[in-house]
Amino acid sequence: MLVKRAKDFEEVVPQEPGVKGVRMRVLSPDEGSFVMRVFEVEPGGNTPSHSHPWEHQVYVLSGRGRVFIGNESFEVEEGFFVYVPPNVPHQFVNAGEGVFRFICAIPKVS
Amino acid sequence: MLVKRAKDFEEVVPQEPGVKGVRMRVLSPDEGSFVMRVFEVEPGGNTPSHSHPWEHQVYVLSGRGRVFIGNESFEVEEGFFVYVPPNVPHQFVNAGEGVFRFICAIPKVS
Repeated sequence: MLVKRAKDFEEVVPQEPGVKGVRMRVLSPDEGSFVMRVFEVEPGGNTPSHSHPWEHQVYVLSGRGRVFIGNESFEVEEGFFVYVPPNVPHQFVNAGEGVFRFICAIPKVS
Repeated sequence: MLVKRAKDFEEVVPQEPGVKGVRMRVLSPDEGSFVMRVFEVEPGGNTPSHSHPWEHQVYVLSGRGRVFIGNESFEVEEGFFVYVPPNVPHQFVNAGEGVFRFICAIPKVS
C-alpha cells in the first residue's frame, strides 16, 4: 500500500524539445497496472506538441488551460476530464495567470 | 477524444451493502485502457469495507477522509495519493464536515 502527499513525490523537469515551464511527479508505485502523474505548468508554459501510441486520461486540478487535440482546441479549468486517444497529436498550454495543474494517467505499456 | 466537466457525467449511487452517502461518476470512455471515476462521500458517509482482485489508485480532491487499508488507517486530505493493492480489504470514510471527494482509478479488468 502507499499513502503519501503528491507534493512529497520526486519532482521531474521534462527536457523533451518543445516543453516549457513544466514539472511532473509520478505517483503510482511500480506495482500499479497504470500510472498516475501530476503535472504543473507555469504561466506561459506548455507541454510539447507530440503524439505517441498511448492514451492520456487527464483530470484538471487547478488553473486554466488550453488543450489542443488533433485539429481542435478546448479551454479547460478545475473539474474537467480530458481523454486523448492514442496516436493523436496533443498539447497542454497554460492559458491563465496561475499554475495549471492536472493529473495525467497513462497505461503501463507506454 | 473527450473533453467534458466531471459534473456533467452521469451520477450513480452505489447500492452495495455497507455503502452510505456515496455518489460516483465514471469519467473514462469505453475505449480507455483503465477507468477514472470521481467519488463524493457525504459527511457521515463511507464506502463499503471490502476487497477485490483489482487495485485502486486514488487522488484526494477535497474534504477530509480516513482510509482503512488492511490493518492500518490513514487520515487524508486534498493532494494525497493512495494506492490500495489488489485483494487487500479497504474502506474510505468521510472524517470531516464537508464532502470528501476523490478520484479512484481502476484497471479495466475489474
